[in-house]
Amino acid sequence: MTDNHILLAHGSGGRLTRELIETEIVSRFGDGPLAGLPDAAELPPLAGPPVFTTDSFVVQPLEFPGGNIGHLAVHGTVNDLSVAGAVPKWLSLGLILEEGLALGILRKVLDSIRAAASEAGVQVVTGDTKVVARGQCDGLYVNTAGVGEKMPEFDLGPQRVQPGDRVLASGPLGQHGAAVLAARKGIDIAHGPSSDTASVHRLVSTVRTCAPQIHFMRDPTRGGSAAVLNEIVEGRPVTARLREERIPVSPGTRAVLEMLGLEVLHMASEGRVILVCHADAAESVLAAWSELPEGAGAAVIGEMIPGDGRVIMETLAGGDRLVDMPRGELLPRIC
Amino acid sequence: MTDNHILLAHGSGGRLTRELIETEIVSRFGDGPLAGLPDAAELPPLAGPPVFTTDSFVVQPLEFPGGNIGHLAVHGTVNDLSVAGAVPKWLSLGLILEEGLALGILRKVLDSIRAAASEAGVQVVTGDTKVVARGQCDGLYVNTAGVGEKMPEFDLGPQRVQPGDRVLASGPLGQHGAAVLAARKGIDIAHGPSSDTASVHRLVSTVRTCAPQIHFMRDPTRGGSAAVLNEIVEGRPVTARLREERIPVSPGTRAVLEMLGLEVLHMASEGRVILVCHADAAESVLAAWSELPEGAGAAVIGEMIPGDGRVIMETLAGGDRLVDMPRGELLPRIC
Repeated sequence: MTDNHILLAHGSGGRLTRELIETEIVSRFGDGPLAGLPDAAELPPLAGPPVFTTDSFVVQPLEFPGGNIGHLAVHGTVNDLSVAGAVPKWLSLGLILEEGLALGILRKVLDSIRAAASEAGVQVVTGDTKVVARGQCDGLYVNTAGVGEKMPEFDLGPQRVQPGDRVLASGPLGQHGAAVLAARKGIDIAHGPSSDTASVHRLVSTVRTCAPQIHFMRDPTRGGSAAVLNEIVEGRPVTARLREERIPVSPGTRAVLEMLGLEVLHMASEGRVILVCHADAAESVLAAWSELPEGAGAAVIGEMIPGDGRVIMETLAGGDRLVDMPRGELLPRIC
Repeated sequence: MTDNHILLAHGSGGRLTRELIETEIVSRFGDGPLAGLPDAAELPPLAGPPVFTTDSFVVQPLEFPGGNIGHLAVHGTVNDLSVAGAVPKWLSLGLILEEGLALGILRKVLDSIRAAASEAGVQVVTGDTKVVARGQCDGLYVNTAGVGEKMPEFDLGPQRVQPGDRVLASGPLGQHGAAVLAARKGIDIAHGPSSDTASVHRLVSTVRTCAPQIHFMRDPTRGGSAAVLNEIVEGRPVTARLREERIPVSPGTRAVLEMLGLEVLHMASEGRVILVCHADAAESVLAAWSELPEGAGAAVIGEMIPGDGRVIMETLAGGDRLVDMPRGELLPRIC
């Protein structure tokens, strides 16, 4: 390559495209079905029903404390499959690159994608790379789609949530949102927040034995836990009642949110699970999670009670506060 | 919605995101697994091996004679599955929207996606929508990933291509490239080129009975037929020998390419198949294609001969000309 930056010609479909793909993509992901660069990857048959999801990533800045857009692109899609009760298997990787992007940044992102995929036990099997002119994207956008295999034990959905169910969080909430916000606003404090970006696939597989009593799981990304909980209860005769003292929040996240007057339940996590289960299973889930490093700080944060589709927080001061869905542009390009 | 344009808040994950998704996405694609907006779509079990592919679309202009970015996003992914010998089944839809995009444009694109998916027999089952600020994308980028089911009869790949094989094109080549180029350069001629964007799934399923004698199929998109043919022969003891007089080109495409001095084999098609088969099967493939409207103009355009990995064209004037892979930035953002 004669230059250390992405050129428009890298997107032409000709020789430079081929060189870029061979050098940067095949070298990292070419040990499986992607090897011969077929139009489409032929995969081994699945034993169970396929589960399919997609996410695009436009996070800004591309790197933040705790990770970069590459980690996020793997974790986001792996996590959507996991909380649907599936074992994540394969990823696609769609890149939109801006002319002038430093190859060093691209390589760092691709290295992170490879490491995160390997850690999550998934394989990047197919991809696509486009280049747009300067000023037509913001460095680098990534899309991943994922295919997984449904675990038959799980039967999940908001319609399964009942009064008496417990609401659990797998760890401190809102760290990703707080870390990106701090990076973007230039807030530089000691022990500031670091993104929680991580795969939740082990948090799900370890509670497989409790599956019949687990009614709902979701990773609280954009919109945070407030959006997840509101979407569960909306239009149903149930209210989520949370206890503020129980909500796990790291000191760095708390510091940034207090500085900016923001609500932790509106902040995105990218490596946590909000799980709703029958009261009888709550201790078993907590015990299983406590054996994993990624389950440190897990807690029962509330319960479902008969109600009218609202999310209520019992505050530290002892009062009740409505936790609404975030309304507006809290934080664009968080993921 | 209080405005007729995309707002940053449509990407926040909060109430406006939800409204946009309900109004524009669920209304069009909510009759299947996408209905309850799960994190991931659970799909019926597949009988055969899954086939998986992805493409991002950044075409400019968003609309061109013969189609728009929505048609392209469905056809591109459906076609990648088809030429891999698979029956296309499900699509994911990832949208990156620019703040200020007119909702009318988004709706037109989504209508085209719905129509193209329905025509190709595929279902949009999962999706994701992000919003970036003004100046951070160019209106609208679309990613589709697709899952299909392998047809066991097909065993395809460049390694199966042998001297003596025939090279077929399913119809006039290069129309998509010529149409986008003419639109972008403001070339306005009578009977100008119209994009060939279309699904090729029927062109593939109709030759299923000839499958054992079919060695390779690809849709000649970015880089055109020149890139496809060079990729087949590169590093193999075979040369593709084409006959210029046999190459189907529409009058409108020819007019634009002559005006600009461009080679039709370098121009993208988005609804054609380049197929390489045993000589004995060529007439059967042509006969099957001729019964479909999308097979009009199909032709045997050349053959494979013992050689050294080149693509040679026997010109109308009787000489030989090397058909190289396109080198540089022929046409950015063609798809």
